[in-house]
Amino acid sequence: MDSEVFSKKRKLLMKTMKNSNPFFAEFGLLDDKAFSEGAIPQKYKELAMVAMSIQARCSECIAFHIPEAVKAGAVKEELIDAIKMGQMAGGSLAYPFARFAFEVLVEMGLVQMTADKI
Amino acid sequence: MDSEVFSKKRKLLMKTMKNSNPFFAEFGLLDDKAFSEGAIPQKYKELAMVAMSIQARCSECIAFHIPEAVKAGAVKEELIDAIKMGQMAGGSLAYPFARFAFEVLVEMGLVQMTADKI
Amino acid sequence: MDSEVFSKKRKLLMKTMKNSNPFFAEFGLLDDKAFSEGAIPQKYKELAMVAMSIQARCSECIAFHIPEAVKAGAVKEELIDAIKMGQMAGGSLAYPFARFAFEVLVEMGLVQMTADKI
Amino acid sequence: MDSEVFSKKRKLLMKTMKNSNPFFAEFGLLDDKAFSEGAIPQKYKELAMVAMSIQARCSECIAFHIPEAVKAGAVKEELIDAIKMGQMAGGSLAYPFARFAFEVLVEMGLVQMTADKI
Amino acid sequence: MDSEVFSKKRKLLMKTMKNSNPFFAEFGLLDDKAFSEGAIPQKYKELAMVAMSIQARCSECIAFHIPEAVKAGAVKEELIDAIKMGQMAGGSLAYPFARFAFEVLVEMGLVQMTADKI
Amino acid sequence: MDSEVFSKKRKLLMKTMKNSNPFFAEFGLLDDKAFSEGAIPQKYKELAMVAMSIQARCSECIAFHIPEAVKAGAVKEELIDAIKMGQMAGGSLAYPFARFAFEVLVEMGLVQMTADKI
Repeated sequence: MDSEVFSKKRKLLMKTMKNSNPFFAEFGLLDDKAFSEGAIPQKYKELAMVAMSIQARCSECIAFHIPEAVKAGAVKEELIDAIKMGQMAGGSLAYPFARFAFEVLVEMGLVQMTADKI
Repeated sequence: MDSEVFSKKRKLLMKTMKNSNPFFAEFGLLDDKAFSEGAIPQKYKELAMVAMSIQARCSECIAFHIPEAVKAGAVKEELIDAIKMGQMAGGSLAYPFARFAFEVLVEMGLVQMTADKI
Repeated sequence: MDSEVFSKKRKLLMKTMKNSNPFFAEFGLLDDKAFSEGAIPQKYKELAMVAMSIQARCSECIAFHIPEAVKAGAVKEELIDAIKMGQMAGGSLAYPFARFAFEVLVEMGLVQMTADKI
Repeated sequence: MDSEVFSKKRKLLMKTMKNSNPFFAEFGLLDDKAFSEGAIPQKYKELAMVAMSIQARCSECIAFHIPEAVKAGAVKEELIDAIKMGQMAGGSLAYPFARFAFEVLVEMGLVQMTADKI
Repeated sequence: MDSEVFSKKRKLLMKTMKNSNPFFAEFGLLDDKAFSEGAIPQKYKELAMVAMSIQARCSECIAFHIPEAVKAGAVKEELIDAIKMGQMAGGSLAYPFARFAFEVLVEMGLVQMTADKI
Repeated sequence: MDSEVFSKKRKLLMKTMKNSNPFFAEFGLLDDKAFSEGAIPQKYKELAMVAMSIQARCSECIAFHIPEAVKAGAVKEELIDAIKMGQMAGGSLAYPFARFAFEVLVEMGLVQMTADKI
């Protein structure tokens, strides 16, 4: 599978980064702290990151944070609400990234692609 | 009061925009839809916007969304959690904006400034 | 054709977005209003969006707005002028995106690729 | 006058930059080339820059390009159309900057502030 | 002094942040690691941050990193070279921030303002 | 080779740009001036651009500036230090771009991929 190959490569690269310099492991730990369960539940943090990734026009960030949000318990309607926020906050220039977020939802089987016919 | 003057000016400017062209009223309505209560509760939407405003390095966005989050029910610990997210997502270049968010919290009486002595 | 497949997928995704939530149709309508003929002719609005897409380093935005500008009547010289604006406004970090805009012009047959020889 | 003092300071700083290093004069010349009359008339280039300055959330860019657009012949309706574009392209996070653009229009006497009553 | 008041307020806010949540102290420590002497000497790291702050259009970042660069040993010519990089990388929209960087150099007595006469 | 095809296409597109309009050659010359040896050695300028490219989330900028830094004399440890700076300055949203920078280092044989086993 393409996405499996990509995912495996990504993990190896992350290991490589951490083996190359302790900074990257420390950055990862601090990142985990900022986005783990806290006063704001983790689900809403990951949904905020989905919105932020769209507003910031970062495809890989979207591809990473949608599955993370799902792992933290987010359902389809919440993910769509997060995409709306990102689209609104980021404007027209964020549109291709809201669309990409939907593509990820379709690939994950959370949204069904509209049939291509009249 | 300075912030009252600013707030009044802001409202007059917003009226002026809407009177000048219907687009601005329509943009405002769509924005309200995207950020009102939905699958994601309004409080978490506004907290997401606090984080996004810090990451996007926008002071006026921060000054607007912190009081909106408070109106939607957010408390000090949640606001600080949102600031952490924005700081982490936006990195060092977002630091002055996380600090500005704390300045707003201090001005709103939600956080007490640390005393200036040993 | 690759770009036909891409274009078809894009349209299906856009339908899917609009079917999933009315917000996306409303966002599209407001976007249409902002960029349709007005005090500024549509052609110059689309050319402005070409420049803005380069400055904002958004490849898909470029791939969308160049054909839109052509539909609105823009010719080669105007498109190149818009690319110059985007390049200048966005600086060196926008350079790969000005180059991508030229790639689109070449693919659309508006600019001929310089021959690869002495 | 405040804005005169600011404008004078700005000019002195620009002279200082050019005297400190020839790069800044050369950058200015190239910038002039990109934004002067060309296949796209200068007026539409400056209007595009007004939109881009709002989308990019840059107050000083807005304060500079609105008067430049006026010098190049832009009228109130065109300026408002450019502000709409910038607001739409940049989304909610660009809103304070569209409002600031209106503040500049009011200060220049191009738009009248809506009366503060009822 | 204005800048002393600002600097004192900034320090108190930073203390307040760290007292409010340990995350901010940890972020500061990681930041220190990334920008301290390493394979790249600290001076060149701070000069890179001056350039990056201009490209990212962040005034407070500029106001912070120029004195840091000076503390790390950077001299006038190096600072101007960093400003050139930031200006070039960020394009016209970064111009007001390159100018602000010069304003900081003038205030620090590193560059003399060009005389205001023929 | 894929990257050879890409590199050849890129060079042809750059020629095409310069043949289409003298602006692009002039922009290139000014860019060369800003990033060539100066008060700051070229190596540190290119390393700053690696960091800036990561912070600005621009993959093609990263793919361009890492080999340029190597040509200017940068070694593995310096490149990793530049990646750390870009990651720290740009935060979590820059993470996929720091990882991509490592991918480039692996492809160039400067860093060895960590073995994929227990």
